[in-house]
Amino acid sequence: MKILVAPNSYKGCLHAYEVAEFMEQGILEAFPQAEVHKMAVADGGEGTVKAIIGAIGGRLHEVKVTGPLGNPVKADIGLMKEGHTAVIEAASASGLTLVPKERLNPMLTTTYGTGQLIKEALELGCRKLIIGIGGSATNDGGVGMAQALGARFLNKDGENIGYGGGELESICRIDLSDMDPRIAECEFIIASDVTNPLCGENGASAVFGPQKGATPEMVRSLDNGLLHLSRVIESELGKDIANLQGAGAAGGLGGGLMAFLPGKMARGIDIVLEAADFENRVQQMDFVITGEGHTDHQTSFGKTPVGIARLAKKFNVPVICISGGITSDVQGLYEQGINVIVGVAQRPMTLEEAMIHAPALIRHAVSSVIRTLMITMRPEA
Amino acid sequence: MKILVAPNSYKGCLHAYEVAEFMEQGILEAFPQAEVHKMAVADGGEGTVKAIIGAIGGRLHEVKVTGPLGNPVKADIGLMKEGHTAVIEAASASGLTLVPKERLNPMLTTTYGTGQLIKEALELGCRKLIIGIGGSATNDGGVGMAQALGARFLNKDGENIGYGGGELESICRIDLSDMDPRIAECEFIIASDVTNPLCGENGASAVFGPQKGATPEMVRSLDNGLLHLSRVIESELGKDIANLQGAGAAGGLGGGLMAFLPGKMARGIDIVLEAADFENRVQQMDFVITGEGHTDHQTSFGKTPVGIARLAKKFNVPVICISGGITSDVQGLYEQGINVIVGVAQRPMTLEEAMIHAPALIRHAVSSVIRTLMITMRPEA
Repeated sequence: MKILVAPNSYKGCLHAYEVAEFMEQGILEAFPQAEVHKMAVADGGEGTVKAIIGAIGGRLHEVKVTGPLGNPVKADIGLMKEGHTAVIEAASASGLTLVPKERLNPMLTTTYGTGQLIKEALELGCRKLIIGIGGSATNDGGVGMAQALGARFLNKDGENIGYGGGELESICRIDLSDMDPRIAECEFIIASDVTNPLCGENGASAVFGPQKGATPEMVRSLDNGLLHLSRVIESELGKDIANLQGAGAAGGLGGGLMAFLPGKMARGIDIVLEAADFENRVQQMDFVITGEGHTDHQTSFGKTPVGIARLAKKFNVPVICISGGITSDVQGLYEQGINVIVGVAQRPMTLEEAMIHAPALIRHAVSSVIRTLMITMRPEA
Repeated sequence: MKILVAPNSYKGCLHAYEVAEFMEQGILEAFPQAEVHKMAVADGGEGTVKAIIGAIGGRLHEVKVTGPLGNPVKADIGLMKEGHTAVIEAASASGLTLVPKERLNPMLTTTYGTGQLIKEALELGCRKLIIGIGGSATNDGGVGMAQALGARFLNKDGENIGYGGGELESICRIDLSDMDPRIAECEFIIASDVTNPLCGENGASAVFGPQKGATPEMVRSLDNGLLHLSRVIESELGKDIANLQGAGAAGGLGGGLMAFLPGKMARGIDIVLEAADFENRVQQMDFVITGEGHTDHQTSFGKTPVGIARLAKKFNVPVICISGGITSDVQGLYEQGINVIVGVAQRPMTLEEAMIHAPALIRHAVSSVIRTLMITMRPEA
């Protein structure tokens, strides 16, 4: 029995590679003869670099960049294909986890560090860049990222604006003439797990602003700022990002990468699975076990279990999704090719208890699934 | 695919037949072609009469008897085998659910009604009686039960004692000369799910007294009462129930049935399964789904999943246990023949939530198991 274990992280609880580890233990507990292959999966957020480099090899290159509030942070660039291709994460340079909760403020946080990571990848000779943009602490429309690459955003007095989402409304002109010329030689692939538009009630500020520390007033101001930015982009650069699906990802960094760079956006999980050569690996398997922290009926665009199922289905490899929690409205996911969806809680318990006992709960849930499979398994398998 | 669904109740939440219903729905959701057979199971407590009559047919005969606190209650006798065999429940005549919580008091509650049920079964011509003794509100050592059948318990003045566990210490003499003579013609099978001794720290009063409303002082007094009763029984009747396994079941009713009647005690679940002809039914099945409210490593003597597994194992029929909640120390149950043990909670939630959503949770857990089985199922199955 060959099993590919390919979970995302249980967000806020366990890293993907830890989940994979406990899943493997659960399999071997029930069936010690199983041949278990493990890979950590990500969807553009935290863990994206590790997932791709972990799956196909390559090396990590550490860079010191400017964090979301100007503080220096260390971030890794993943280098592969003999240094031609780089994978970076906005989360590692401009991410939520880099700012203490009480200091989160999307009026001030910048994606400048993400731009520095891109610049460093160019210096290293990379000409294909995969940019995972989940998990940012920012709402600056990618302006900081572009500034790091030489773009200038000028106010009515012709002066450079400052950092953060609070500055967007003062932009009068955009000057890309000093942008790094190597950008034109590059392919930029944006890995995102959301499709939100830039502005409005489903836009970056309204949907993701609050978890980045925005008060209701800030949300209004940030939303106005992004709308203003999109208008200046339209008049100055002739690009319409206001109506672009996914432009609202990562506080508008999605839109900025498409406006200031020749970025193309795609489902984060698809990009990660492609980069990790998932299709070749899954073909040889009897089945796949995946999972994520929480699965509900919204688990679709860009989410791990559905992305995995889409590819596994091509080869008729069954997919079992074992998540930290599931709601009872997941039936639609069966049609997306997931065979079984299980939550690991085995009794009424608090979220805190579930997180503390996650390793044992994962082991038990996985071993129960394997024990069930063994009931009807062909003897020769 | 032939599946036998045979759960106990999810105690305090759903009756066994309801659990079976939701399990069936879960199976058919995943695999509409399945051939589902249902039976409600019990282990000597509430639901025992319905489980047996529901499984093999027979009729219910309603009787008005004396409840635990002297209040009249209606209870059913199950009649089968052309009226030769009766099945009764102590819970229906002397049970916890018959007394409002604030009036529970094992110093006062009596098993008199259980004795009346026995007497009525004798009147109806039954000569084999199955007596389920779980769920009683009493701690009277079965003295009330014996009183209803003509036994006399006399104090030092030669007067009849009153009802309830508080009276036991005043017993000086036991006179069985006026006991119903038909008792001698009968076989009494006591269905119990516990093995507790009559007295001491594992005895009836200490272990079950508190849930019947006993204060710590009452526990001491009740324990002394049962110890005294066992001594009088030894000197008057020559029977030693103090050292008899299971004598502490149902507040000593187990011991009383063995002392005052020729009762033989056995595992409740085994008796129910035998009476319900489980062995013949299970042989033709591809597997069995059972379950109970809560499963932990103590799920052994007399508990449903283990009883089911013991018989199913004889015919190599796999057993899947789907319970309301399970703890992580259930590994030992695999050795008892249970193949898979699953808890229905699918995400962190309170006990209250779990109880409210129990139908949906059961359906989902069962359909997940069926979906998993189908992954490796032989096409011809």
